[in-house]
Amino acid sequence: TGKLRALKRWGLTFLVGVLQAVIAITCNMASRRLGEVKFDHVYDLLAYNAMGSASPSSSSSGSMSAPTEDQYAYYTADGYLDMNQDGIPDEQQESGGGGEETDLNEYFFNFWHSPFLAFLFYQTVFATIASLFVYIEPVSGGSGIPEVKCFLNGIDLPRIVRFKTLVCKVIGVTFSVAAGLPVGKEGPMVHSGSVVAAGISQGKTRLWGKDTSFSKFSDFRNDREKRDFVACGAAAGVASAFGAPIGGVLFSLEEGASYWSTKLTWRAFFCAMVTLGTLFAIRNQDIKFGQANVDKLFSFGEFTAIGDGMVNFSVWELLLFILIGCLGGLIGACFNAGNEHLTIWRMKNVNFCKKRRVIEVVVMSLLVTTVSFVMPLIWNRCTELPTDMQDWTNQEKELVNNLVPFNCIPGKEYNEVASLFFCEADVAIRQLFHFRETGETDAATFSSAALFLFFIPYITLASLVYGIAVPSGLFVPSLLAGAAFGRLFGHLLHKLDHTSGTFADSGTYALMGAAAVLGGMARMTISLTVILLEATGNMQYCLPLMMTLMSARFVGNVFNEGLYDIHIHLKHIPFLEPDVPTIAERHEIVAGQVMSTEVKCLRPVERVGVVYDLLKNAQHGNFPIVDTASSGTLYGTASRTMLCTLLQRRAFGQPHDVNNGQNHSNTGEDYAELLGPKRLSPLVQWDTLERVYPRYPTIDDVELRPGDRNCWLDLRPYANTAPYTINETASIQRTYRLFRTLGLRFLCVVNHNNQVVGIITRVDLLPDSLSDAIMRGRNAHMVGGGLS
Amino acid sequence: TGKLRALKRWGLTFLVGVLQAVIAITCNMASRRLGEVKFDHVYDLLAYNAMGSASPSSSSSGSMSAPTEDQYAYYTADGYLDMNQDGIPDEQQESGGGGEETDLNEYFFNFWHSPFLAFLFYQTVFATIASLFVYIEPVSGGSGIPEVKCFLNGIDLPRIVRFKTLVCKVIGVTFSVAAGLPVGKEGPMVHSGSVVAAGISQGKTRLWGKDTSFSKFSDFRNDREKRDFVACGAAAGVASAFGAPIGGVLFSLEEGASYWSTKLTWRAFFCAMVTLGTLFAIRNQDIKFGQANVDKLFSFGEFTAIGDGMVNFSVWELLLFILIGCLGGLIGACFNAGNEHLTIWRMKNVNFCKKRRVIEVVVMSLLVTTVSFVMPLIWNRCTELPTDMQDWTNQEKELVNNLVPFNCIPGKEYNEVASLFFCEADVAIRQLFHFRETGETDAATFSSAALFLFFIPYITLASLVYGIAVPSGLFVPSLLAGAAFGRLFGHLLHKLDHTSGTFADSGTYALMGAAAVLGGMARMTISLTVILLEATGNMQYCLPLMMTLMSARFVGNVFNEGLYDIHIHLKHIPFLEPDVPTIAERHEIVAGQVMSTEVKCLRPVERVGVVYDLLKNAQHGNFPIVDTASSGTLYGTASRTMLCTLLQRRAFGQPHDVNNGQNHSNTGEDYAELLGPKRLSPLVQWDTLERVYPRYPTIDDVELRPGDRNCWLDLRPYANTAPYTINETASIQRTYRLFRTLGLRFLCVVNHNNQVVGIITRVDLLPDSLSDAIMRGRNAHMVGGGLS
Repeated sequence: TGKLRALKRWGLTFLVGVLQAVIAITCNMASRRLGEVKFDHVYDLLAYNAMGSASPSSSSSGSMSAPTEDQYAYYTADGYLDMNQDGIPDEQQESGGGGEETDLNEYFFNFWHSPFLAFLFYQTVFATIASLFVYIEPVSGGSGIPEVKCFLNGIDLPRIVRFKTLVCKVIGVTFSVAAGLPVGKEGPMVHSGSVVAAGISQGKTRLWGKDTSFSKFSDFRNDREKRDFVACGAAAGVASAFGAPIGGVLFSLEEGASYWSTKLTWRAFFCAMVTLGTLFAIRNQDIKFGQANVDKLFSFGEFTAIGDGMVNFSVWELLLFILIGCLGGLIGACFNAGNEHLTIWRMKNVNFCKKRRVIEVVVMSLLVTTVSFVMPLIWNRCTELPTDMQDWTNQEKELVNNLVPFNCIPGKEYNEVASLFFCEADVAIRQLFHFRETGETDAATFSSAALFLFFIPYITLASLVYGIAVPSGLFVPSLLAGAAFGRLFGHLLHKLDHTSGTFADSGTYALMGAAAVLGGMARMTISLTVILLEATGNMQYCLPLMMTLMSARFVGNVFNEGLYDIHIHLKHIPFLEPDVPTIAERHEIVAGQVMSTEVKCLRPVERVGVVYDLLKNAQHGNFPIVDTASSGTLYGTASRTMLCTLLQRRAFGQPHDVNNGQNHSNTGEDYAELLGPKRLSPLVQWDTLERVYPRYPTIDDVELRPGDRNCWLDLRPYANTAPYTINETASIQRTYRLFRTLGLRFLCVVNHNNQVVGIITRVDLLPDSLSDAIMRGRNAHMVGGGLS
Repeated sequence: TGKLRALKRWGLTFLVGVLQAVIAITCNMASRRLGEVKFDHVYDLLAYNAMGSASPSSSSSGSMSAPTEDQYAYYTADGYLDMNQDGIPDEQQESGGGGEETDLNEYFFNFWHSPFLAFLFYQTVFATIASLFVYIEPVSGGSGIPEVKCFLNGIDLPRIVRFKTLVCKVIGVTFSVAAGLPVGKEGPMVHSGSVVAAGISQGKTRLWGKDTSFSKFSDFRNDREKRDFVACGAAAGVASAFGAPIGGVLFSLEEGASYWSTKLTWRAFFCAMVTLGTLFAIRNQDIKFGQANVDKLFSFGEFTAIGDGMVNFSVWELLLFILIGCLGGLIGACFNAGNEHLTIWRMKNVNFCKKRRVIEVVVMSLLVTTVSFVMPLIWNRCTELPTDMQDWTNQEKELVNNLVPFNCIPGKEYNEVASLFFCEADVAIRQLFHFRETGETDAATFSSAALFLFFIPYITLASLVYGIAVPSGLFVPSLLAGAAFGRLFGHLLHKLDHTSGTFADSGTYALMGAAAVLGGMARMTISLTVILLEATGNMQYCLPLMMTLMSARFVGNVFNEGLYDIHIHLKHIPFLEPDVPTIAERHEIVAGQVMSTEVKCLRPVERVGVVYDLLKNAQHGNFPIVDTASSGTLYGTASRTMLCTLLQRRAFGQPHDVNNGQNHSNTGEDYAELLGPKRLSPLVQWDTLERVYPRYPTIDDVELRPGDRNCWLDLRPYANTAPYTINETASIQRTYRLFRTLGLRFLCVVNHNNQVVGIITRVDLLPDSLSDAIMRGRNAHMVGGGLS
């Protein structure tokens, strides 16, 4: 049966990988399609207006010859997307042949021919739809990465891995990305993978009421198996979002797994690989026997080395990359600080009311739309398209087709700022990474001023938007803002030295900037490096990326923590960092100092009334059972869920001394009689307990009949008789390691005689509690705590 | 002081990175230089013989025009190595102008003009020198990876991280690689990094007798800090060997760190980055302001995509890669099985005598040399060099220059088998990966027969050689044999379908074959994938490599374990695998079943004689201290090293009842008097104990004077009063996790009253001991053990 279970486990992991790939690709396609609908209409209106109002440009575009009209076709969103697929724009005949007038008649509503109103309409409607899904399921808002981190850390946040959350998250993120908000779908994909994994491993959802037997009989229904599956799912999520399977595994390990299990690592690796393989197969289904296309969902484009066996930068430029990293760390710290203050304000003024949250989304969407539209208008300059593209690669030529002629002559000119604001975020990122930079002049590329006019509003908007009630990832906005910043930095360097070759190209600097800002915001370590490296796809950037990310993290950590950690702390979740808090390393603290001495204990055989009252009054998840016969040594522990289930199943026996009226005075002797070998209460099968996982009855579900309170509940068959314990004199470092390594939620503190003197929970190990404990330790007697 | 310590730690880590890079590059240069000396002489003798004996070819080479003589120059080892550096062979004038006759006069000894004798002489002398270094320091033999694994696992093998070991290992591996044995320098580099890290962190070596104060005062002299440093050093070692910093970090984590510490990961990452940066700076020191060369120590060469945004293989070929993985797993399993049997034989018949080990090396070297020389002779076919190389890349042209004209016309023809046997291993690997393959005909490339004639002898020799008394890595031989196998596989596929484009090029298959055989041999998981991916430098091979390695591991694990694990087990080292043994998962075992019940306990205040006898008679590293006043509850533990130091420092007090002759009968009353608050024995400062780390006195260093045995040793100030304990009813899974996660070496087993009932050491948790425990559990009463 062990082998069968292992086989089932691998089978389910395979299924998780495949499903996550399908979800990711569906979500991606849908949000692209929605984006196309929006941009098509807006582009058409823009073109119509350009013809009608700006007569010089319209006349020149009206008298265009056939080939120019072909070029015009490229800049419809539809057109360039189809270019990506098969290289031939299939809209060519329609838009080229039919003319602009008929295009507009296709649409039901014209918005009085105002592109701004159309843009506003689409963006706001999409954003509202996204926020409605969060209205239905509030935990589906935001990135999802903090929630997955907490889950992997051992904290069971409610409804995080439910099927309903998955549906709302995936549909929501599709619309929020299509709405043009500065959000990405990478975080939500990680969350989606986790939910898929949890759902498949447990084989039970409340929505369908379905219950598959494989999971029940295979003993997958426990926290540890579920957590392992979620770790695999998170890896698959990262793999589907960035095409970074190894980065995904590392993400799972870094964020969650406190215990390095080779088997689990290998399984997460397998899951990520299946996801990548499925994506690969789906994307290449039409090219059967030919060469395969290695497109990822989210692509940085292809970085190529400029020469044989050479890298695109010089040795001493590594120092510049470190400088970019430091600046990125600063930017990230500002971003985090701004968002933290905003989130605190939001928690006070918005979040308590669901309707207010929807209104906030609408307001934000209006703001984002206005800024996105006004910035290109402010720029109001037309740049000529590059003409001599003989030696350009396909990728570069394609990027030229993606440039947006906002109020400029299509096919001849483009608006630099509009080309960044008016397209999908990953297209804009590729523009910044790969649009050819001569290094001598700013012509025919993004100028410094345009980059600045994009960078500042965009990163401000991103900081404002994160936290509103839509599913929203943070990776893409950070990368895009960072790429603009990096490219700007590269421009300034090129201004210093015009001759080509001294500095690396602006694309390399854009990549470093993207890494720096993302690293300064998220502060992840090795996993982020690997994710970026895999997305970049070129190993020559390994050393620069490492240096940039490392300096960004170092500088950022001086000011505040990573944004995910900030949000976890704002929610007051007892998240245990992988490392012992520095306060514990600096001071000598022992377990006896931090423990809570108000321990509610049970006896091995206990009155039902006592158990019931305890469950009613205390909120703890576990209760120590102490042996009163031997002056309070620890017998074992009982969990709240088990106790509730036992009470609900009425697993207690009638009191044998029901007649003599002295029920409540439990003297030592008559209690000792109870501890004999005879069975006191009907035994509940372990299966019965397991079947209700994870929706155990609560104490409110338990109804006691009048005589029940005097009955005896025999806890001995159910108690965990070998709980982890720690001596009261053990150092806090040791306690912390035990907690974090084994993913514990509580720990009994005992003295040398194995008597329970206190209890430690996660909350007691947070830095704030530790500093309290130090203060207490100075005043009160240290090991004085006892049983309450 | 906490910040200063952290700063020092980072500073030392930086130093480790730089030093390891310098060592790696020195070792690499030296072994190349030695190889050049050897090959230059042999090539010259070969050319001389070709002129003298084979008159048709010699006449044609004699009447060569100037450009042809230039080409001849390329195939000297010196020439092509210089080509790597600056593209211009600097030997051109010498060998081209001086003629072949004068070349031979340069050498002191001509070996009767026999290239075979010269070859034999050089190879054997180098091999003997390598083995002499192992003669000096036996633990410097072999790969070093099993030793590093054990060290990171928490097992302190003697002399593994000593300075002497480092010197012998590095010089030894330089010579063993130069000796042409099928060994690599990758494993030894990992070992070297570990020793450097351990040495720098401890700041003390026996060889110099130097003791730096920074380490002493910064409290780095404990097992945990040392282990962390070694993990960083191992990462730096991998980074220096393969240019794979992330793979290095993962290697450290996978092999050693049971506890995922973000700080440690980050530090290992930093260390690997510093190594890579140093290598990068050293290699590019001459190219100051230009583009940098990204050469690694060990390079797979540059893999390029054949088309824009396309990958070099089709979707369905992934299935073929899985097949290659399975075959690689089989080959690896055969390799491991063969080497296991040989090692057992070797342990019985050779290893007990140092001289026999040297003789074995000489014999092996003779065998390897003979085979390497005879195989090209057997082949005895000349293939014409490709002539039309217009569209070839620089890398491919360079590879053509590296082909060896063994008894063929230099500059026109080459011997296929000789081109694989008669050059450095990494050049041969690059040939197999990148030598252009048309897909239609075998001409102008390595033919299937030649590959077969190389693959079988080479992998056999590699299996024979691993384990002899020279420092020897296993990665390179596995990769080379695997590359030959993979290319052979690709050839056979191309035979099936001659038209180009159906199957990927042979180079891709060679890469997959290399991964498969290495994976089948080493069975490492994620770290190996990342190492290979980083060495390949092209992310498009991510999915194929993952699939190949995964299937290789699965198939290999059916038959036996990885070679490193085999060697660890053959040495009977109590190595704890990261995962609980399957036997423990299948049966219900509790801690009480596996524990050893023969516990030697001490009392908090103990007679010196008792302590001395205990240390003399028992070999344990730790002893529980039980409180006899409270019927044997656990008071704490004392380590052997501490007890020895205390005895040596005479930290015991005079017996207060020395006069009344009843010293040896310790009745309860007079013992209880001792436990009062008054100080019984002079206190030894913790500094004193720490100063002697890691070379504590042994019990044989302790000399007791006549009256000492009756003195009292007060252990209470020194005892670890909060040792980890486990209840006798705890499951074996829980015990195992506690052990492995916290890197324990022993664990006290207690009952519900905190009385010591047994002790568990690493040996008790090995699969064999567990199955013994199950057998015992059926016969004897389970929890019957008590204090002995």
